Formats: sequence, C-alpha cells, structure tokens
Amino acid sequence: MTTEKQTATWIWYPGDFEIWLHREVCLRREERGSIYPPFYRLDSPYVSLKFQHIYTIAESEEISIAAEGRYNVMIDGLMVPSASGRIVLPAGEHNLIISVVNEAGLPALFVQGSSVASGPHWNVSHTNWQWVSPGSWHFNKATEPPSAYRLATIKQSYMSEEQLPDGSRLIDFGKETFGYIQLHGLTGPGKVMLYYGESREEALSEAHCETLDCIEVAADAPLEYTHHASRALRYVRIVADVGIEVRDVSLLYEYLPVQYRGQFRCSNESINEIWNISVYTLHLTTREFFLDGIKRDRWVWSGDAYQSYLINYYSFFDEAVNRRTTIALRGKDPLDTHLNTILDYSFFWIIALYDHYWYTGDLEFVRSMYKKLLGLLDFCRRRANVNGMVEGQPGDWVFVDWADMDKQGELSFQQVLYCRSLEVSAQLAALLEDEVRAQELSREASSLKKQLFETFWDEEHGGLLHNRVNGVLQGGMTRYSNMFAILLDMLDEKQRQLVARHVLKNDAVPSIVTPYMRFFELAALCEVGEQAYVLSEMKSYWGGMLDLGATTFWEKYDPELEGAAQYESSGRPFAKSLCHAWGAGPIYLLGKYFMGVRPLDAGYAKVLIEPTLGGLSWIEGTVPTAEDDAVAIFMDETSLRIRTGNRPAVLRLTSVIEPTCEAGIVGAIGDNRYELSLDSLQSEYVIAYRTYPTQSTNI
Amino acid sequence: MTTEKQTATWIWYPGDFEIWLHREVCLRREERGSIYPPFYRLDSPYVSLKFQHIYTIAESEEISIAAEGRYNVMIDGLMVPSASGRIVLPAGEHNLIISVVNEAGLPALFVQGSSVASGPHWNVSHTNWQWVSPGSWHFNKATEPPSAYRLATIKQSYMSEEQLPDGSRLIDFGKETFGYIQLHGLTGPGKVMLYYGESREEALSEAHCETLDCIEVAADAPLEYTHHASRALRYVRIVADVGIEVRDVSLLYEYLPVQYRGQFRCSNESINEIWNISVYTLHLTTREFFLDGIKRDRWVWSGDAYQSYLINYYSFFDEAVNRRTTIALRGKDPLDTHLNTILDYSFFWIIALYDHYWYTGDLEFVRSMYKKLLGLLDFCRRRANVNGMVEGQPGDWVFVDWADMDKQGELSFQQVLYCRSLEVSAQLAALLEDEVRAQELSREASSLKKQLFETFWDEEHGGLLHNRVNGVLQGGMTRYSNMFAILLDMLDEKQRQLVARHVLKNDAVPSIVTPYMRFFELAALCEVGEQAYVLSEMKSYWGGMLDLGATTFWEKYDPELEGAAQYESSGRPFAKSLCHAWGAGPIYLLGKYFMGVRPLDAGYAKVLIEPTLGGLSWIEGTVPTAEDDAVAIFMDETSLRIRTGNRPAVLRLTSVIEPTCEAGIVGAIGDNRYELSLDSLQSEYVIAYRTYPTQSTNI
Repeated sequence: MTTEKQTATWIWYPGDFEIWLHREVCLRREERGSIYPPFYRLDSPYVSLKFQHIYTIAESEEISIAAEGRYNVMIDGLMVPSASGRIVLPAGEHNLIISVVNEAGLPALFVQGSSVASGPHWNVSHTNWQWVSPGSWHFNKATEPPSAYRLATIKQSYMSEEQLPDGSRLIDFGKETFGYIQLHGLTGPGKVMLYYGESREEALSEAHCETLDCIEVAADAPLEYTHHASRALRYVRIVADVGIEVRDVSLLYEYLPVQYRGQFRCSNESINEIWNISVYTLHLTTREFFLDGIKRDRWVWSGDAYQSYLINYYSFFDEAVNRRTTIALRGKDPLDTHLNTILDYSFFWIIALYDHYWYTGDLEFVRSMYKKLLGLLDFCRRRANVNGMVEGQPGDWVFVDWADMDKQGELSFQQVLYCRSLEVSAQLAALLEDEVRAQELSREASSLKKQLFETFWDEEHGGLLHNRVNGVLQGGMTRYSNMFAILLDMLDEKQRQLVARHVLKNDAVPSIVTPYMRFFELAALCEVGEQAYVLSEMKSYWGGMLDLGATTFWEKYDPELEGAAQYESSGRPFAKSLCHAWGAGPIYLLGKYFMGVRPLDAGYAKVLIEPTLGGLSWIEGTVPTAEDDAVAIFMDETSLRIRTGNRPAVLRLTSVIEPTCEAGIVGAIGDNRYELSLDSLQSEYVIAYRTYPTQSTNI
Repeated sequence: MTTEKQTATWIWYPGDFEIWLHREVCLRREERGSIYPPFYRLDSPYVSLKFQHIYTIAESEEISIAAEGRYNVMIDGLMVPSASGRIVLPAGEHNLIISVVNEAGLPALFVQGSSVASGPHWNVSHTNWQWVSPGSWHFNKATEPPSAYRLATIKQSYMSEEQLPDGSRLIDFGKETFGYIQLHGLTGPGKVMLYYGESREEALSEAHCETLDCIEVAADAPLEYTHHASRALRYVRIVADVGIEVRDVSLLYEYLPVQYRGQFRCSNESINEIWNISVYTLHLTTREFFLDGIKRDRWVWSGDAYQSYLINYYSFFDEAVNRRTTIALRGKDPLDTHLNTILDYSFFWIIALYDHYWYTGDLEFVRSMYKKLLGLLDFCRRRANVNGMVEGQPGDWVFVDWADMDKQGELSFQQVLYCRSLEVSAQLAALLEDEVRAQELSREASSLKKQLFETFWDEEHGGLLHNRVNGVLQGGMTRYSNMFAILLDMLDEKQRQLVARHVLKNDAVPSIVTPYMRFFELAALCEVGEQAYVLSEMKSYWGGMLDLGATTFWEKYDPELEGAAQYESSGRPFAKSLCHAWGAGPIYLLGKYFMGVRPLDAGYAKVLIEPTLGGLSWIEGTVPTAEDDAVAIFMDETSLRIRTGNRPAVLRLTSVIEPTCEAGIVGAIGDNRYELSLDSLQSEYVIAYRTYPTQSTNI
C-alpha cells in the first residue's frame, strides 16, 4: 500500500484574506509623496487565531509548520516545542491546536505531513472558541504565503520618447497603463524625479501632476531599478540630476490575469472601438478588487463595484474578483456607518449579492455571507424612520449622484433600492431555508413598496416624485428612482411606458451628467426597447472621448470643455480619473441588450437570448454564462446563428416575418414576437427572420 | 504681549492605547521558547484615524508633526505637502485634518506649534466621521510616543550564588521578582542558557522549568547584555558553553511606580508579615494592567482583576491601573463571547465598574464607558433564558471556581451576580440621567431578585440552593451564591445570620479551596462579624505559605502537600504560579474589616470607619480615601485615635462601656453600638472605649 501525500494549503480566518488585502490595496494610494487613506473605515484581520485539526493516524508522522506570525503547538492541550518548525505527531486520534498571532498582517498557517496537511477541512477560531472552516485559496507552497500575493506582471516598453528643452525626457507608453517604472542602466549618485501623467499635460506639470516619485540614487546603486510603488500613467517625465545616467526606461505592467470570455463585434467600427476600450478600461480597474479608477481613488466603492460586477458578467465572468470585492466591502462588525459611509452603497451591496447568485448560481457564497447580509440589512432597518423609510441620518452620506439635487428627507431613489434589498434578501433567505426571516422580509418589502407608490407615484406626471421632507412631498421629479424602478423590476408595463415617455425621454427632467448614472439610464432605456437611441448615445458620449484621444474611458466627460480643461476635477487641474471602471458600461449594454443574453434561471440554468440590432447591420460575439460556458451569436437583418453552450436556452425574437429554423419549432407569442427553445447543447441554430424597423429616428 | 506656547501631547482614539497595550502585554507570555497567546479574544486599535482641529489664529504659524504611522495633512479639504514634518498654517479659521494610518501598532499624533498643539480638545474619528475627544495621557514630547511606554526599571542585585557541580551557577535574588536578566562582562562566542525558577527546584529542572531563554553570544558581542524579554523569577540557573565568560549577573527589575498609600501594623508579627508580603505580591501583579500572576498566566482576567481592584482601594489607590484594566478587559464590539469567555467574568466587570465609581467618585470614567457597559449588559440579557435567568450557552465557560461542582442550568451564583449587575447598572444609568434605562434595569433587577429568591431560597436549610436544571431544583447547597449574596447586599439581617450559621460555618457544605474564592468567603464572614475567625484563617492559610518560605503569595496552597509537590499544577511540575494577585486578599480584609474603612457615599464623600480588633491587641495604619487623601487609625482595647483627612467621616464602634471623646459627642445606636461624627478635617480624634470580647473561641 502506498500512501499518497496530502496536498497542504495555507489557511486563515475566512474572509480575513480579503479584509487584509483590501486594507493593503486601499493604503497604496499616494499623492505627491503623501499616503492618501480612504475616507471610509478600514477593517483588519483578527490578530490571534487558533487552528484545530482532530487527526487520526495509524503511525506517528512528522509535520513541518510554516506560519505568518508567531505560533505555538498543543497536542491534547499540552504545549510541544515547535521552534524548529518540525513536530512529530503521535499515532492515534489527537487534538492538534496551533495558535498563530500576527499583529500587523494576516495570521495564516501551512502544515505539511504525509497524511496530515492544512486545508479547508481544518477548523479555525479567532479565539472565541467558535470553530468555523478556514479560508484558503491557491497558496499551496510553504514558501508562497498569502502575504506574498501579487498580481501578475510583465515588462512593457514605451511607445515614444520626447527630449524636452530642459533636458528631461517625456516617455509615452501609448495608452493608459499601470505598473512599476523601471530604470535600466542607472548610475548615480543623485536624484531622479518621476512626474506621472494620465495626460501629456499632467506629466508636464511639476506643480499639479497628481502623482510623482523621488528616487535617491546612491553612487553604488545597482544598474537596474524597479520602483517599489505602482502608478497609473500613460506618460512619465523623467528629470534627473546632472551626473545621473538612465539608459532605458520600461514599465513592469501589473494586471489581474483574467479571461476575455465576452466578445463583441458589429457593423460599426466606432462601436467596436468603444467595446475594446471598455474592456481595457475594465481590465485595468479589475484587480485585487474592483477599483473605481486606477489613479484616483484607487479605492473600492460599493456603487462603482455594483456596476463592475454587472459589466464583469458580460466580459471576464471572473467570479473570484466579485467575491473578493463583496467580502472586502462588507468588512467586519460592528457596522457604525453604511458601506463607504454611503446610504445607497449599502443597498447596492445587497442587490449585488443577489445578482451574483443570479448570474453564477453560487448559493454557497451567499451562505458564507448570510450573517453579514442580515447584519447589514438590520443596520439599515434600525435606521429607518417611523414610516419604515430610510433617510440620511447624521454621519450618512446620501450620495445618489454628483449632480445637484435635494437630498433631504425620504428620497424615492433610496426607497426603491431599500425595497429591492428587502425583496432580494427575502429570496436569498428562502433559498437558504430561513423561512421565518424570508416571510418577514417579504412582508416588509411589500409594505414598503405599497407605501413607496402611495407616497411618490404621480400618475399625472408619469413617474415617482423625488422626495418627501417631514411629511411634505417636494413635487420635483428626477430620473434616478424612475430608472431604477425599471431596472429593479418594480413597475408594471403601463408604468414602464409612462416613465419612459414622461421621465426618461423628457428633456424637462434634469439630465444626467456622470457615466455612473448614465449607465443605469441607458440600461433602463434598453429595458423599454430604446436600443437605437442608446446606440447613438454611446457613439456620441463614449465616441466623444475617443475623439479626444482617450485610450481608456473617463470618470466624467463634458463635450463642452476644451483641451486640458477636460482633466480638471475638484479644483485640481489633473484630478479627474481618465481610467474609471464605470466608463466601461457599453460592455454591459451591448451584451445584455444587443446580444440580449441574461439568465432566465439562477446561474443560467436556462439562458435567455433576446438579440436586437438596434440599428446596426450585424452584430456577433460571445456571452459567458459561466466560467467554462458561453453562447455565441451572429445576427444580421435577416438571419441569426446561435451556438449554444452546455446550458439550454430560449430565444425570443422580434421579426416582421415568421422566423424559421431547421433545428426547432418557432412559436409566435404575439405582437410580432417569436420564441424558440434551444435545447440542444453545444449546437448551432440557424434562424431566418427579418428585422423590425428600428424606432431610432423617432428619438 | 507674549504668547505662551501651548503644551502638546500625543493623542489617539480613546481607549485604543489600552486595547493596544493589552494586546502587547498579553502576547509577552512565553513558555520554553514558544509564544503563549491568551485563550480569549484579543482586540486591536483602529488602523485608520482622522484627527481634526478647527483652529483660529491671528498670524500664520509653523507646526511640527510627529505621528505613529503614515500620515497626510489637509487644510480645508486640500492636501498640503507634509513629508518634512513641518507645515505653515495659514492665519484665520481653518479646518485641519491629519489622517494617520498604522496597521501594526497604535496610530497616534503629536502636533506642536506656538498656539496650535495636539491635545484632548482635538477631535478624532476612526474614519466613520463620528468625532469624539481623543485619548491622551502623559506623553508630552514628540520623541516619547505612546508606543515607547514602558514601566519603570531599576537594577537589582542578586542575594546569593551557588556554584553547581556541573559548573553552572544558580543565582538567587532572595525573593520573587520580575524583570530582565543582565549579564555583565559577557564574552563569547557560544550559547548561554537561562533556566528560571520561582522555586529553587524549578530553576534546577531543565526539563520542566516553565520559562527558559537561550542567548546566542557572538564573538564580537558587547560586554554588557540585557535580555529583551522580562521574566518572573526568584532563581535563575545560568549554563554557559565552554569558552563563555559571565563576570556578573543582575536583574533590571521592572515595576509600576505606585504609592503605598495603605499601611497596616498590628500586635501580631505574623499578620504584619502577611500584610507586607501581600502588598509586595499585589505590587508585582499591578503593572500595565492587573495581571493574575507574573509567571502564569501573565494575562488579564476579569475575575482576578475584580479582586485586585478591591485590594487596590486599600493599598495603592491607583485609579489609573483600574481604568486601564477596565478598558482593556471590555475590549471592542462586537461581543461574541463573555469577557475572557467566562459568564461570571462579564458580571464582575460590571460590578467592578460600579465599585470604581463608589470608591473614587469618578463619574466621568463611567460616562466614557457607558456605551460599553450597556453593550455588555445587553449581550448578557440577550443570552438569558425564558425565565430571564442566565445559564451557560454553547461556547460559554461557566467558571465560578476551580472546585468540582455541577455547572449545568441556572446557577444561583450566576443569578446573584447578574442581578447585582442589573442593579448597579440601573444606578449608574440614573447617575448619568438616562432615566428610562435606569427604570427599565431597576425593574428587571427587582423581578430577577424576586425570582431568584422564590426559586433558590431554602428557609429550612438557611441559604440559596446551588442550581436548577430544566426547571428541576437540584437540592445541593454551595457557599458561592450565599457568600456573594452577603457581599453584594442581597440579604436581610435575618437571612445573613441564617446563611452564616447554616452555610458559611457549616462543615457539611463543601469547603472552598482556592484563595480566589476564599477571599470572598472570608470577606462575607467579616460582614457578619467573624473577624476573629478570619484572623485565625489568615494566620494558618497565608501563614502556612510563609512557613514554606513564600516570598509572595501563591495561586493555590494545600497544607497537605509536601516539598516540591506544592509547585505542581495542571500536570506540570512547576506550573503553579507563586506570585498571584488573588493571594493579596489580606490587605482588603484588614483594611475594610479590621481598620473598618469604606465609603459611606460615592467617592468617600463621607467616610465610614468601623474598626474591629478581631482578637488583636492593637492595630494601626492608614487607609487611602483618594489619591491625595487618607484616614489614619490606631486602636487598642481601650482607646482609639483617628486622624481624619479632607473628608468628613463617621465612626461606628462596639464597646462594653459608653465611649468618650473630647472632640465630639458619642451617640448610642443600640446593642452596645455607638456612633460619632468626625466632621473636623485633618484632625485627630481620641476616643476612650472598651473592646467587646471576641467570639473567636466559639469557632
């Protein structure tokens, strides 16, 4: 008999790797030589852990122990010497407890014996003696502990170099990028200044560039230098003291390895470019977590992440970054502020957790977060007012959007999010068989929904009014609650049409200026069939940035601004982020509303495909339905080809003729709409149809 | 006009200095080369702080900044360069925010300008944007930050040295002590082993001594060596490699500077020695916090601390160590276990907080802990059963005492503590004008008290029965709940006498074996006038340890054991702690029940003096009534001299004749009891009386 050696893996308190990494990542932001910690609370891992494993072995065996932190070892309650990192375990059944303490980082443990090995089957407690399963990932070597986790890197050359009159060099990497500047053939002594720019103007502004580094080069310094801190940049200006030589410059590009599972091409080259730049933008901001922007804030915001999750389902379908971001944002108890301090951002977290289940079917992840979900929900409920509605409490940031608006009292926008949070929590509770809670939350959601509509719905003006202060309706109408009411499925068909006409397509209602809220507005318009309008908006808004030379999409874009005025924000000439996750919205719009793919059941147990050209001559691409599955679609004005994956799908189609398909029977569902079951897996369906004239000219 | 320079002091998040220091101190325990972290949860300071100061200055001024951690500076929301540690503040009114981040230690800040200086008038937030007043202490120099806090040290020489046959040296410091071993005239290279012993036998046992150190000496090491870690010891055996020279040995004794405010002498030399050794024992265990023992556990336990607080009022009256211990023990939210995981220990914390107010009158400290008090109380209340009583929940340690007993179900002992916790919390709530809460808690306390007596009081057997399991009374009687019912003032006079006769003085009720619970038992006996019995118990129990050569009092003492068997605990030959705070109980017994001093009003607004010889010919001493106040007492069988402090006092006295006093009018209060108001401050009162014959012979 041969015994196979067990594979050991590093283990820690579940969730604490993400909490620790979030802290690390958020504290990497620097501006002009100063650290720039987030405006919101940062949590820390537990400091003192006990790892337990009750083992049974026929013969005694030696284990080797590696730990992040100081540790001791007890067998059946008695301490055994462990300074050598090797211990002989006695045969039989024994209770092995290894205590690990780490004040500064993440306490973690790696134990390797021939049959005893650390892994998710062990127990861990943060010394509260409540044993839970430890967290683990892919750290399977003693010498590769979790603290050594880094994203991948690859050397990147610059595209062009400009010698400036003052003798300094302006290096251009040709597009927005992220990483560690490398100086080759560096000789000193002296000082090298690096001025970074997302724009040329920023790199040239010693006084106002947001990021700079000062490198002190000793006379005997090594020739090869890699800067210790990563930066967002397209340009870097290098100013070296007299006597300093820098032979060559490169960047150690740093990135999360993801698969580009979503693909999109169409008849319009501008839209194709928008798609490509969107994917690159999202890739740069998809890292340890979803960041808002890579230069600024380099932090993790729940509202921004909510969009990134959605876009991720149509591009990388990277479930792990969703999970990491979700865990990090929720942080630890006790909650004494909303997530990121923002009222709306607590709700986005809850809704996003449901979305993650809906797109991936990962109920185990929901189960692992369930206590945290209920805790956050209870925090929100405790702060509801006597009407059961939420409004800003002292210390709350009622964000909604950067636009000027009245944020006092009960905002219909916040009630829509809160109501949806209650609904999805009730559904998750039911899935986890917490029936009492499910019913309680469901009743609460119904009651709030009823009150929301009784309070804010204005039939005459066809939408939800903006807010109520001290019991007095304020009368104004904004787009926010109305578009979310469509997106979060809170309106009937008649109400949707009213909202579309009276609010979304009504110029008298204040327009939306951030790509953040534009994303939701355009998605809501797609929900009511306005793809053609959305397409033209994409061309002008995102295309406008491309016309200005954008290589990634921006935090804000105002077509009226000229030249470097585009880069200003918050009174600082270059504070605007030129690579912002929420700029990548077209991926979602094109994947969900043109390719038309979305789950019909949780985890894409059934795939809905409802493609629309929206005024394009043809579209083609792939939408992932899991990490290892996708559907491929080609559509032009008369034909449609669909390659199914490993999941059954349903096609819904609008056509002026009755579509035909050799492989299946197309059924009419009224109003020029047709349906076809795509039950054959890994199969190609070819459908003949004729596209419906778009209504784009009406807009 | 000259402007006086403001005094700056280091500031931090309130309570976080204590939380950080507690973590540091608890993690200093090592056994035979391994760290030995506590069995209970350790909390950490907040990592990311914002310090705020809204200043108004007529002229701009420069400030210098020192921080523990990385920091940045914003004035009116705009970051200003701060890498140099010096900033010029613009004149006028401005909002200065300094963010400090420290992942491993305590984030803290020190700002010194001519008129702007960090201090308790600043604000701080742990980035939850709820501003509170920062914590501070006596760290008033930029170069002396809180992380550098150390107890005082002084060089201590050893008393004798023994050359052992194997060439090693056994150093004896003559008594139990604590500090850092110093080796003088040390030359290498090689290894020096240090084997510590609280007893000679322990130091001689390489295999079983609890503490040892291995020092690697390099050939070029300095001649003077001080070990980095402090140890508890009386003996140290030094075993050096061949070629190593050690010219001399000493100890850097480490101690908390306290004042010996309480004094006691009496006609019995053995009792005087017990007092002295008790004070030394308490001093060794009174450090950054009240430790249980200095060798083992070197941790902070709430039940042990409860006694130390009480003893402290009659010795050092050091309020600061009480506060530090209270803050550290409570830790941070969320609570998911009782303090130290022990049910009883949560209640001791609550009762001790009230005691601290009662002895010191420090309502501000109570105010600062009030949220934490309510949080802990709510944690306990949430875990009460349907009868409103507490019993062990999964994960709870129901401790009571080390003795064997049934710990299932509802213990009357736990209900007594819980009930008193509710009562004192109600009183504190009333003092803080939280009337609604006060009434609610008071009602709850009354209801529980009623139920406690209805359930457990057994009139026939004259005491509280031990426990009830699943509604069924178990019938047994133990001392614990009964003596605490006396001490915590829950019995009427008739019940007290019943309990004294049927429980405390009844050999059929299982006797108490730990000094921990003996303390309470003897105090309860004093409460019912059994000082003479208590005196003889002190002589035999504490005196028994002295007879065995104790230089500090032990964790446990069993007169039946012989020789080194005294040192065994938990199956380890030298695990028993020979310097344990709860061994210092005689200080409290002698101060409170012989000198007879206790507060009649909170903070000794009025001092009660009720002295008793308890069989001694004379007693004399001082009892502190504040950090800067005390009463001095001399009493023999016919006379009494009292020197009042700055507080009015009341004397109550038992005498077979009517006492006389020139300075006041003695009033009879019946039953050979007399009372005299001592209203003159800083005055000496001389009273003639005749002592009542003691009842010691009855026992």
